[in-house]
Amino acid sequence: MEWLIAPVSSILSILLGLFLFSYVTRKDSGTERMREIAGAIQEGSRSFLKTEYTYLAVFVAVMAVILSIALNVKIGVTYVFGTICSALAGVIGMEIAVKANVRTANAAKKGGLSSAFPIAFRGGAVMGLMVVGLALFGISLIYWLTGDPEIVLGMSIGASTLTLFMKAGGGIYTKTADIAADLVGKVELGIPEDDPRNPAVIADNVGDNVGDCAGSGADLFDSYIAAVMSAMILGGAMQIAYLETVPLVFSGLGIISSIIGVAVVRVGKGGDPGKALNLGTYVTCILFGILTFAATSWFGYDLKIWGATVVGLMAGIIIGMTSDYFTSINRPPAVKTAEAAQTGAAINILTGFSYGLISVFPALLGIAIGSAVAYALYGVFGVGMAAVGMLAIAGTIIAGDAYGPIGDNAKGIAEMSNLGEEVIEITDQIDAAGNTTKAITKGFAIGAAGLTALALLASYQEIVKSLTGRTIGFDLMNPLVMMGVFIGMAIPVVFSAMIILGVSKNAFRMIEEIRRQFREIPGLMEGTGRPDYAACVNIATKGALRELMPLIIFSISTTLIVGFVAGVRALAGYLSGAIFSGFFLAILMANAGGLWDNAKKYVESGFFGGKGSDAHKAAVIGDTVGDPFKDTAGPSLNTLVTVISQIASLFAPLIIAYALIGL
Amino acid sequence: MEWLIAPVSSILSILLGLFLFSYVTRKDSGTERMREIAGAIQEGSRSFLKTEYTYLAVFVAVMAVILSIALNVKIGVTYVFGTICSALAGVIGMEIAVKANVRTANAAKKGGLSSAFPIAFRGGAVMGLMVVGLALFGISLIYWLTGDPEIVLGMSIGASTLTLFMKAGGGIYTKTADIAADLVGKVELGIPEDDPRNPAVIADNVGDNVGDCAGSGADLFDSYIAAVMSAMILGGAMQIAYLETVPLVFSGLGIISSIIGVAVVRVGKGGDPGKALNLGTYVTCILFGILTFAATSWFGYDLKIWGATVVGLMAGIIIGMTSDYFTSINRPPAVKTAEAAQTGAAINILTGFSYGLISVFPALLGIAIGSAVAYALYGVFGVGMAAVGMLAIAGTIIAGDAYGPIGDNAKGIAEMSNLGEEVIEITDQIDAAGNTTKAITKGFAIGAAGLTALALLASYQEIVKSLTGRTIGFDLMNPLVMMGVFIGMAIPVVFSAMIILGVSKNAFRMIEEIRRQFREIPGLMEGTGRPDYAACVNIATKGALRELMPLIIFSISTTLIVGFVAGVRALAGYLSGAIFSGFFLAILMANAGGLWDNAKKYVESGFFGGKGSDAHKAAVIGDTVGDPFKDTAGPSLNTLVTVISQIASLFAPLIIAYALIGL
Repeated sequence: MEWLIAPVSSILSILLGLFLFSYVTRKDSGTERMREIAGAIQEGSRSFLKTEYTYLAVFVAVMAVILSIALNVKIGVTYVFGTICSALAGVIGMEIAVKANVRTANAAKKGGLSSAFPIAFRGGAVMGLMVVGLALFGISLIYWLTGDPEIVLGMSIGASTLTLFMKAGGGIYTKTADIAADLVGKVELGIPEDDPRNPAVIADNVGDNVGDCAGSGADLFDSYIAAVMSAMILGGAMQIAYLETVPLVFSGLGIISSIIGVAVVRVGKGGDPGKALNLGTYVTCILFGILTFAATSWFGYDLKIWGATVVGLMAGIIIGMTSDYFTSINRPPAVKTAEAAQTGAAINILTGFSYGLISVFPALLGIAIGSAVAYALYGVFGVGMAAVGMLAIAGTIIAGDAYGPIGDNAKGIAEMSNLGEEVIEITDQIDAAGNTTKAITKGFAIGAAGLTALALLASYQEIVKSLTGRTIGFDLMNPLVMMGVFIGMAIPVVFSAMIILGVSKNAFRMIEEIRRQFREIPGLMEGTGRPDYAACVNIATKGALRELMPLIIFSISTTLIVGFVAGVRALAGYLSGAIFSGFFLAILMANAGGLWDNAKKYVESGFFGGKGSDAHKAAVIGDTVGDPFKDTAGPSLNTLVTVISQIASLFAPLIIAYALIGL
Repeated sequence: MEWLIAPVSSILSILLGLFLFSYVTRKDSGTERMREIAGAIQEGSRSFLKTEYTYLAVFVAVMAVILSIALNVKIGVTYVFGTICSALAGVIGMEIAVKANVRTANAAKKGGLSSAFPIAFRGGAVMGLMVVGLALFGISLIYWLTGDPEIVLGMSIGASTLTLFMKAGGGIYTKTADIAADLVGKVELGIPEDDPRNPAVIADNVGDNVGDCAGSGADLFDSYIAAVMSAMILGGAMQIAYLETVPLVFSGLGIISSIIGVAVVRVGKGGDPGKALNLGTYVTCILFGILTFAATSWFGYDLKIWGATVVGLMAGIIIGMTSDYFTSINRPPAVKTAEAAQTGAAINILTGFSYGLISVFPALLGIAIGSAVAYALYGVFGVGMAAVGMLAIAGTIIAGDAYGPIGDNAKGIAEMSNLGEEVIEITDQIDAAGNTTKAITKGFAIGAAGLTALALLASYQEIVKSLTGRTIGFDLMNPLVMMGVFIGMAIPVVFSAMIILGVSKNAFRMIEEIRRQFREIPGLMEGTGRPDYAACVNIATKGALRELMPLIIFSISTTLIVGFVAGVRALAGYLSGAIFSGFFLAILMANAGGLWDNAKKYVESGFFGGKGSDAHKAAVIGDTVGDPFKDTAGPSLNTLVTVISQIASLFAPLIIAYALIGL
């Protein structure tokens, strides 16, 4: 019964999360003006979530009925349970973010960096601890009730579909607002970022919360569940009894490591927030390695399982670190991209895009070698455990990631409330450290999702085997498999294209609205008129949902069509194809986007003519191209691949029974 | 002995090509001024080819020695033969292009469209007929001498490596010149395109020849040989004796169809060049279908072989037509991209990129369904014949494609020689029809290369089987195969990134040079000073070769490393991965690039503010981003994948014997 470590540690994690929530909430939220701005952001964020969840309730209800009828009621119920957990994680993350931002700004004014940093970080930690706590608690509960990891699949896919809406919908929202605010504000009118005269400024700040904060938390939430579940399925299929619960034990130890890792993060007077965040990550990783090694000896697990787990963790860190290299502001890729901006926007874009392409190489190599070594150590179960190992430290990773938008928002509030240069500088420092963790987290999340997808592919094969009684190979020279690969490759490609077009379309609408307000509201430019923030929030919210729904239905139905027409082999090829192009595009978009962003910041910091120069204008165009890459399309792709992989596993029994082209 | 159709038809094709060559050369080359400009272009083109071939002679010699020692002397000799054929095709295509351009311009002045069009088209036809004639003649010769299609592999890879240099080197050259000429000329100084005051204008026109004309001809040359060869290998491995020569028979009939198709292309007074070109393609396709059907009945071939061939042809046409849809100037994708330019360059780029992504979907579907149907009809040999079917009409396709840069150059010469508005309009009409054929050809070439790569993968498996005596499966769940896929995917990705960076770097150098000339040469802007064209040509040539060599060595050596370290299975995964990402990137880059180009032209034709408006400036940035996409990186990827696939087949015996991880 050593797997009870999982529920115990997850309950601990949830309790600590709640404690930190009340810690942050008790802090002072500042002046009237600050509360007003924070209130507007909070209101916008809540209204977005409310609208989104209202639509989603219908979608979830329909899906639950379909799953209950087509498969069984247990799956339907756990599906709903998964969506509720995911929604809860999103709501909590959002609520804490909109409370922590203003309090961070206020603390920066009152006590400087050493007072402000803990609020921002602990706000992020609420998200991190709640996400992993809820996820592992949910898995443990279902496993305790049913003893069958395949039922966890229901919860996992519930979490994944909701995450897809959160990531992609939030991504459309945030970039609609960001692009529109920047293009009209900075480029056309020459007013600064986060200027309260800009009608899109609240929507922009809301976007940081709904896209970056709630979205990223939900992202790792769904990969986390999928990884643990598929490792349990793969372990359960092996002949050794304890393997099914090893993923639970190791994940529980991962949560304990994360709790300690989060606790050690602090920054003294004049300290460096970036270093403090890194320390937390290192402590978590090392502790995880030690604790799992101890558990392996204690419970008599095969040492190779531990090896595979650590290989996964290391692959995740390597992918995260290369992401950091390719996007960091003072590394050659960003500097050269900034330099290219002197020759105009086109060369700036081409240079950034090329480095983005190159950055895919180490990530592909990391996944390739990581999964091959894990397989060599312990077969497909080794691959599953590598994914678990990568995601075990998710608590700390999410904490650092959710910290980012809190800092970003704090800076925005400080600027809009005129808290003075010194406070803005402190919040800027907090924000800058957040950008690095964000880059690492993105690489990490994509790597984790990549390994998880491979584990899901393996568990799909396992499920097919358990249903048919024989191992079905997925040979590339089988024309159905090859056809599947080509069609599957198209799914992430079309998905990201449509979602970017969605952002453009939506941004177009909002740009018209901002221009209208500046034209029609008297005294807006002079600061005497009051902009209609709500109109912009509204455009962003409704547009995001309108663009998204058909895409998700397209992805799910294509998966089912391929399965029911061309059979299980074609579907395996299809999933592989989606993994290939999805992983490639996710890395490319995240890194190229981050790179253009930092190349712009590099120019802004005074190089190549600095702010207002032609190079700066060119770099701003590059940054705008990168915005939907890194914050909309890129981060949705992981989840998309996870969703369709799980759909395939879930419908495997029906596909085997009814497909036009059989085994 | 029915396969003697192949050498007979190829000799016919070469003779007709030579006849048309002398037809074009006999035409009047116009005024002193025109001859001067054409002479400069000719000189620049020849100097590029000369420098390139000098470097390549060393490379080819080293490769030939390695191949002779590592494998056998026959391979070494046929390798050299292949490179010579490819070089010959390039030289002839280039020579006729630089002669036909000025004669087309002159004929437009003297006799209007109906006199000018045949010169441009027959110039293109020289290239088309010579390429397929030389290719099929070479294959027939080697087959006649050795009776072994695997020896043709030596010729095929010789052609492919040279093509890779031509395409990629020419691509870097042409875009270096194009970007630099545009950015300084049009954007900074506001002088028109093809203005003789611009020092880069000759390099730009040379670029059209070396990149578009010589390059594209060589591109289909190498796919053509590879397709025929791999179909012969696959046919030879089957139990029915006649299968080995069916690819030769069908290719011979394809050449006869192309000769007739080329002959029917003519345009009357006030006729439409685009329609005339399309007619040629349709006639060729229908004739090919009829002739091969007749041959199938006459020689008693299995009707399913004919079916697979026609399926390939149809897949090629569909991919070409969707490319046309996604890039045509008055179709929704280009119009919406142009519309987006009103909101600035970023949204214009995002929109075009998104449509480029979407355009990958039908192409993937075409390849997926085409190859699966061909396989269902006749196994892997069916896939090989589908590739042959797609490429059988290459003669007509290349003719239409090579016509493009001739028209483009004719227009340039007409502008630079001040032949007047009316003549420019006629050459413009010729040029515009060329842009459409160019779009179709690109889609077609990529599709053909995709199918050919699949056939090469199958023949790789066949070669491994013949060496080991057993069929080695390439199962995706085998960790070596999966690792291979991930690493293989990286090759086209890194290659295209490095080549784009090469263009940027090179363009950067040339921009400095153009600015220097405008600064230092007195009276240049006023038209009294004489620009130093040769300096720009020089920068483009040397830079192209300097950027390219390490890339090609990187690609070949990675292939060998994967093979010798991780064995034949990993290498199969690696080739598949390269096909996946290569095909995807090739389509994306070709179509997105073409789309931005035409979106710009749409704005220039008077929409959304027309020339000089903000939308136009934004569209020009998009076009510049697209330039290296569509003319440098995109078209090189086919050939890259063909090269590494053939390297794998060629070294299969050594890899099986010496790889660290064996079977």
